[in-house]
Amino acid sequence: MSSSGTAPAYRRLSVDERRTQLLVHALGLFANRPPEDVSLDDVAVSAGVSRPLVYRYFPGGKQQLYEAALRSAADELEQCFTEPQTGPLTERLSHALDRYLAFVDGHDAGFTALLQGGSVVETSRTNAIVDEVRRNAAEQILTHLGVAGKPGARLGMAVRTWIGAVEAASLIWLDEGKQPPVEELRDWLVDHFVAVLTITAAGDAETAALTQRALSMEPHDGTVGRLARRVLPVVADATHLL
Amino acid sequence: MSSSGTAPAYRRLSVDERRTQLLVHALGLFANRPPEDVSLDDVAVSAGVSRPLVYRYFPGGKQQLYEAALRSAADELEQCFTEPQTGPLTERLSHALDRYLAFVDGHDAGFTALLQGGSVVETSRTNAIVDEVRRNAAEQILTHLGVAGKPGARLGMAVRTWIGAVEAASLIWLDEGKQPPVEELRDWLVDHFVAVLTITAAGDAETAALTQRALSMEPHDGTVGRLARRVLPVVADATHLL
Repeated sequence: MSSSGTAPAYRRLSVDERRTQLLVHALGLFANRPPEDVSLDDVAVSAGVSRPLVYRYFPGGKQQLYEAALRSAADELEQCFTEPQTGPLTERLSHALDRYLAFVDGHDAGFTALLQGGSVVETSRTNAIVDEVRRNAAEQILTHLGVAGKPGARLGMAVRTWIGAVEAASLIWLDEGKQPPVEELRDWLVDHFVAVLTITAAGDAETAALTQRALSMEPHDGTVGRLARRVLPVVADATHLL
Repeated sequence: MSSSGTAPAYRRLSVDERRTQLLVHALGLFANRPPEDVSLDDVAVSAGVSRPLVYRYFPGGKQQLYEAALRSAADELEQCFTEPQTGPLTERLSHALDRYLAFVDGHDAGFTALLQGGSVVETSRTNAIVDEVRRNAAEQILTHLGVAGKPGARLGMAVRTWIGAVEAASLIWLDEGKQPPVEELRDWLVDHFVAVLTITAAGDAETAALTQRALSMEPHDGTVGRLARRVLPVVADATHLL
C-alpha cells in the first residue's frame, strides 16, 4: 500500500511509538464523541496517516482500536489513584480526586458513553477493563486506610459503593454542564467519603478502628475539621436524638 | 400455523391479557439470565404457547420483547417508590427501599445485565427507560423532602448521587451473593442517605433547612436516633476538630 516507505514520517517512529501515536489520536476522538461515531478513517485523518496503516496496527478494526484505547485510558486512570502514603487521608483523597476529575473533564463524551452503556462497541471485555479500574481504586483506598488483605464485608461495601457514587456524581456533573465548579465537587466527594466511612463505622468494629485512627490524623484546619464545624449547626437542634 | 385457534387457552385471553402473560414469562426469564441468552422460543416454551404467537405480539423480535419487558419492569420499579407522605422520612425511605431491594432480589441477573451494560440488546431506548426510573426516584424523594419544583444544584446532585450509590450497592450486594442480609443493607442505605443529606446541608442553605425539618420529625428511638448514638463513640476522641 501507499504506506510502504515513501513518506519519511512513517519510518521515524518505531512500532510502539506508532501504536502510541494512533492511540493518542483515537483517545482524543473518543473523548469528544460516542465510540460508535469514531471510525478508523477518523483516526487516520487525525494522525495524518493512511487508513491502511491504521488497519495494519488494528487489524480487528474499530472494536480492537476501542479496546486498546480503553486499555490505555484505564492505565491513565489508574495512575490518577497513585498517591504517597503521607499526610491526612482526606488530603491524599483530594489529590487523587483532582486527577480523576481532570480525566473526566478531558474525556467527557467517551466517559459518559462507557459508563452509561448502550454503546455498540461495549462488550464483556470492555466491562472487565472498567471493573478492573474500580477494583484498583478500591485497593488503593484500602491501602491508604491501612487495611492489609481482604477487608470485611461492610468496609468493602462502603468503599466500593462510594466509588460508585463518585462515578454517578461525575456523570451528573457532566450532564449538568460541569456544574458545580470542579473544586466544589471534589470537596463534596471527600466529605461524602468521610460520611460513608463514619456511618459504616457506627455498625462495624473494623471500620470504627480505622476511622478513629484516620480522624486522629486530621488537622483542626483540614477538610474534616471544616466539615465537622459546618455540620454542628445543622444538627444542633436535634438533641432529642441523643 | 398451529396457533390458529384450535387450542381453547388461546381464545380465553384478550389481546392485553395475552401480552401481559407473555411479558410476565419474559421477565421471569430475563430475571435469571442475561438478555442476550433469552430467545422468543424460550418465552413460547415458558408460556406454553407457539412461537408464531409470540412473534405476532412482538413482531420486532427479541429487541421489542426486551424493551416491552423492561418497560413493564420499570413500571413495577416505579410502583416501589410510591409511599404515603406520613411519618418520619427515614421510615418512608426504609419502606421504599424494602420494595426496591425485593425487586433487585427477584430480578438479579436481568438487573445486573441492565445496569452493568455490555448487553447486546441495550440501546439508547433502553437507557432512556432506566434514566426515567432514576428521575422518578429522585422526584419522589424530593417530594417527600418537601421540595416543590426544581431543587438547587447541590441538593439535586446529592439526591441523584445517592440513587447512583444505591444502584452500585445493589450490584455489589448481588455480586457478593446477597450479603450482608437485606435488612442490614437497607438500614445502611438509609444511614447513607442521612449522611449525604447532612454533609450537603453543611454547605447549602436549602438542604440545611429541609434537613433540620426532617431531623425534627425523627423520633428518639428511630433510625436517625440510633445512628446518632452509634456515631458518637466513633467521633468522641476527635474533639480537636471542633
